[in-house]
Amino acid sequence: MKNINNSKLKIIPLGGLEQIGMNITAFQFEDSIIVVDCGLSFPEDDMLGIDLVIPDVTFLKDNIDKVKGFIITHGHEDHIGALPYVLKEINIPIYTTKLTMGIIENKLKEHNLVKSTRRKVIKHGQSINLGAFRIEFIKTNHSIADASALAIYSPAGTVVHTGDFKVDYTPVFGDTIDLQRFGEIGKKGVLALMCDSTNAERPGFTMSEKSVGKTFDNIFAENKNSRIIVATFASNVDRVQQIINSAYKFGRKVVVEGRSMVSIIGIASELGYINIPDKTLIDIEQLKNYPDEQTVLITTGSQGESMAALSRMAAHIHKKVTIKPGDTVIFSSNPIPGNEKAVSKVINELSRTGANVIFQDTHVSGHACQEEIKLIYSLVRPKYAIPVHGEFRHLKAHAEVAKSIGIPKENIFIMQSGDVLELGEETAEVTGKVPTGTILVDGLGVGDVGNIVLRDRQHLAEDGILIVVLTLEKYSNQVLAGPDIVSRGFVYVRESEGLMDEARQVVSDALDSCLNKNISDWGKIKNTVKDSLSDYLWKKTKRNPMILPIIMEV
Amino acid sequence: MKNINNSKLKIIPLGGLEQIGMNITAFQFEDSIIVVDCGLSFPEDDMLGIDLVIPDVTFLKDNIDKVKGFIITHGHEDHIGALPYVLKEINIPIYTTKLTMGIIENKLKEHNLVKSTRRKVIKHGQSINLGAFRIEFIKTNHSIADASALAIYSPAGTVVHTGDFKVDYTPVFGDTIDLQRFGEIGKKGVLALMCDSTNAERPGFTMSEKSVGKTFDNIFAENKNSRIIVATFASNVDRVQQIINSAYKFGRKVVVEGRSMVSIIGIASELGYINIPDKTLIDIEQLKNYPDEQTVLITTGSQGESMAALSRMAAHIHKKVTIKPGDTVIFSSNPIPGNEKAVSKVINELSRTGANVIFQDTHVSGHACQEEIKLIYSLVRPKYAIPVHGEFRHLKAHAEVAKSIGIPKENIFIMQSGDVLELGEETAEVTGKVPTGTILVDGLGVGDVGNIVLRDRQHLAEDGILIVVLTLEKYSNQVLAGPDIVSRGFVYVRESEGLMDEARQVVSDALDSCLNKNISDWGKIKNTVKDSLSDYLWKKTKRNPMILPIIMEV
Repeated sequence: MKNINNSKLKIIPLGGLEQIGMNITAFQFEDSIIVVDCGLSFPEDDMLGIDLVIPDVTFLKDNIDKVKGFIITHGHEDHIGALPYVLKEINIPIYTTKLTMGIIENKLKEHNLVKSTRRKVIKHGQSINLGAFRIEFIKTNHSIADASALAIYSPAGTVVHTGDFKVDYTPVFGDTIDLQRFGEIGKKGVLALMCDSTNAERPGFTMSEKSVGKTFDNIFAENKNSRIIVATFASNVDRVQQIINSAYKFGRKVVVEGRSMVSIIGIASELGYINIPDKTLIDIEQLKNYPDEQTVLITTGSQGESMAALSRMAAHIHKKVTIKPGDTVIFSSNPIPGNEKAVSKVINELSRTGANVIFQDTHVSGHACQEEIKLIYSLVRPKYAIPVHGEFRHLKAHAEVAKSIGIPKENIFIMQSGDVLELGEETAEVTGKVPTGTILVDGLGVGDVGNIVLRDRQHLAEDGILIVVLTLEKYSNQVLAGPDIVSRGFVYVRESEGLMDEARQVVSDALDSCLNKNISDWGKIKNTVKDSLSDYLWKKTKRNPMILPIIMEV
Repeated sequence: MKNINNSKLKIIPLGGLEQIGMNITAFQFEDSIIVVDCGLSFPEDDMLGIDLVIPDVTFLKDNIDKVKGFIITHGHEDHIGALPYVLKEINIPIYTTKLTMGIIENKLKEHNLVKSTRRKVIKHGQSINLGAFRIEFIKTNHSIADASALAIYSPAGTVVHTGDFKVDYTPVFGDTIDLQRFGEIGKKGVLALMCDSTNAERPGFTMSEKSVGKTFDNIFAENKNSRIIVATFASNVDRVQQIINSAYKFGRKVVVEGRSMVSIIGIASELGYINIPDKTLIDIEQLKNYPDEQTVLITTGSQGESMAALSRMAAHIHKKVTIKPGDTVIFSSNPIPGNEKAVSKVINELSRTGANVIFQDTHVSGHACQEEIKLIYSLVRPKYAIPVHGEFRHLKAHAEVAKSIGIPKENIFIMQSGDVLELGEETAEVTGKVPTGTILVDGLGVGDVGNIVLRDRQHLAEDGILIVVLTLEKYSNQVLAGPDIVSRGFVYVRESEGLMDEARQVVSDALDSCLNKNISDWGKIKNTVKDSLSDYLWKKTKRNPMILPIIMEV
């Protein structure tokens, strides 16, 4: 690869640097652009009613003739979840490993995009050429099988992107992360390392996935007389494998429950990423044919999601399974930040039903802690460090780790989405900014809910709404009907009749004052009504509901 | 104390057993009722717009002639916060320790209740007689000074209530928990122990408050060149004392910032619970007269509260202090469950500003872990165990601890709010239920927001509202004006004109069909409009906004 024009390599994150979620990064060299990952994020607490958040890909649309394809590191939602939405805007091919592709294809089916999307499955160790780039897939370990790091070779130099990873010397399925290859590539010279920051605040090493298997064995041994229900992440195929292993060892049948769990285990099983012994899996309908102590349920709902199978079992609204006294329920997961209370709520419900709830030593992270990050730096020895995958606090902690092992401060770049980082052999600097942003998905609507709608939802959520309607005579502006006041989410009207009566009087007085002053501009009338009513309600209740005056004319 | 009629002692929790919060428990013996604590809880995530939650005290109102007074264990909001609201309903005296009373009086002032409320300050070791009861205050350790356990003596036997406590052998202020007295009372025979369950899931011992002081000294030593800002709980007077100690040791001036922090430190200082060396405290206005490295700010906002001082400093909207690069910011707190994301948001903002954020080893809990709980059981040796102060999971974990040290299963009572537990020397059973519940406080409104209003707020928050207004001719039911559709929080109308035009057509068609069928019942017309529009919007958007048809007549 010769760099005839001495061009720079541009790294342009379009998401993923302000949060854990919505990972998508463009790499540009001259007329070639490749895109690593295309994830979604879940709505923040103030994004009321929003289902998903996806990245704004205006930059890719504007440069569509240069964009060669998506390179996907692994099959988690924050790396693949936006694909179906983005593919509707830019139809470019997808390159990824087998299981990852299986999970993506499942999504494409739902969105009717299978036929129109070019796809190529790549094996670890293989490379593909896309424009000026060559991209090599490197085996890593993570909380989903088939995760990859990428070596991105360009005429301006090589960038190593770890994807999401941990170092697992005793993986449940397949090999340990290909540390040799990291070393080999590093030895040849790497311009920049883009490395996972999720656990950069945590000292030490992340435990092997296998350690959880031992805990399962112990729990199964100690609870021989009870039904066992395990909630975990649907995508953690190795975890499910270990639950199945323990079940098999202790002679229990396994039921898989929850839509995403059934779907991913199906794909993993079909593609050979999970090994289920014959006659171990049974249908949920068959559960009643076996004594409790011979069954295990593996289910979704480990994050306390109110509609997931576990929550419904706990709340006695699941059609086929109800938690009962004596059941052993294992949370094989940690609450993702923000879900703590929801998880606790389910634990309380389960406990109250008489179940024995276990949540200690039943989960390990899929992300590298500080010592693993240092290991990768020591193998790759990059000139520049670009911490990725994290909130600012994680990126900063990662920067400290990089500094501690000798990367000069000025060679560490904490980027923001949209930054254009230009890398040459001797130089690296942020030279520009491309448009980025978030697009909100609500039901079928993609991007039709923006800040104004969200602000209204927040206002409505806080104090509700009062609607003031009246009908005016077209020419005289005389009030023919109303003013009527209807409220929702403000106050329980039957208990507050006096307040509402007075409110009506306030509105009438405001209207009279307008008519007396011969104000006929509807905007002014509405504002007067709104202000008077708002003042009155604040004085009386210290609340600030939305007030919506509607005038009709006859 | 003689039990002539062989009456039972009734323990009636009116709150605090479904959550950590809203602690209030009535004890009744014949015609005497005493009430331990009167706390509030903070709204759950689905209680949109609600400020506070207080207990329903109907049981106390119905028995007001028997109620002798409030016994308050300590000054945290979940033990005193509902007092101003409840005192307006039942005017009974308050008995508590000096600092606790100081904090309560501050609340009473705000609610203009100082004059009307009888109050008596009690010292640790002292007892008071109230009706058939004698109540002894016992010194404990907690994350607020002046916390008490209670020995409640009745003719039916003695109950020990720990309040919130930990065992701190090296307290910052005052003495270690009075373990001797627990032993002495236990030796004489205790019917029931009501013990704090908050940390009952955690093995081991809670660290001494003093361990945090050592961390502060280390951090101060390591950050000699930067301004130090420490965020902590306003009520943790000992914590503030230790920050002041470190500041004094390192020659720094101290500014106290944040309304509740200023208020509580003022009370603690006045009452002698905090020892501030001369010339250490300065006004925030004087901050500019000292170099950064000679100052410390102690502030509220450790829970990420968006309106607290720290968040405002981080967001550059605090009037007097702005976080700048090089500042050292210490979170001397753990996030309370549910606040994790808010805290993380502030940490990110601070880090982005260039501050060095420290949150490791800078906090210890105020609650007893398993070994401390066992210690109290071993001193008190009660016949019956009643775990208190916790969600069900904590109460259950506590029950396991009690079982592990020999309390028979049938002598452990996990109660629910409203349960009436009758205790005699040989018997204990739940014999009835009194009315309990939660009352929502929103602005000035106490109890005027109920389930219907909350459900409406949730509905509005999720998908917004569409209001359909029309004016009908009184006799002919002919449409004189409208139908107009106004929406808020549903969709950004300018981008969705087509949708709104079609929606109007759907409404017009629905109206026509009603008129054609000579339907003149407004209820039926409204329902038809609502259903048609709702079906149409669901089909088009997979959203379910509130639809509110309003008909006027002229």
